[in-house]
Amino acid sequence: MKQFKGKVSITLRENILDVQGKTIEHALHSLNYNDLTHVRIGKYVEVLISAENTEIAQARLSEACNQLIANPIIEDYKIILEEIK
Amino acid sequence: MKQFKGKVSITLRENILDVQGKTIEHALHSLNYNDLTHVRIGKYVEVLISAENTEIAQARLSEACNQLIANPIIEDYKIILEEIK
Repeated sequence: MKQFKGKVSITLRENILDVQGKTIEHALHSLNYNDLTHVRIGKYVEVLISAENTEIAQARLSEACNQLIANPIIEDYKIILEEIK
Repeated sequence: MKQFKGKVSITLRENILDVQGKTIEHALHSLNYNDLTHVRIGKYVEVLISAENTEIAQARLSEACNQLIANPIIEDYKIILEEIK
């Protein structure tokens, strides 16, 4: 059994209004960070996975994302996996 | 002026109890995802930056993270920058 570290970045889908992002953007602009725009806020999840190989680890984590970690109706997610030696 | 996309992943520092992560972990285990452990939940921020070069973009975004986006007392953050062509 191998150990993997999974990093999941979850963002609201492009066409969904990101109120939290807009708020941070306004706050940045009022602090003179006018060079920072299009702020989108999402979630970031780190998790350890025990699996035979990368494919199984990837499949298990995707399944968990769809079922519980992310909301696939309004969110997109990206998974990065690395084996822990 | 160049355009960069900054991706910031923000996590609670190692020694700080992550209640939200523990809750997700318990929920995963009750759904039979016992192969997923050590869940840590953080924030993920995407932002566009206008800057002369990568160094300036990196410096501006770090500054904004320290000042507003992250809470450096209890959180760590990692920045990934890519130029938009």
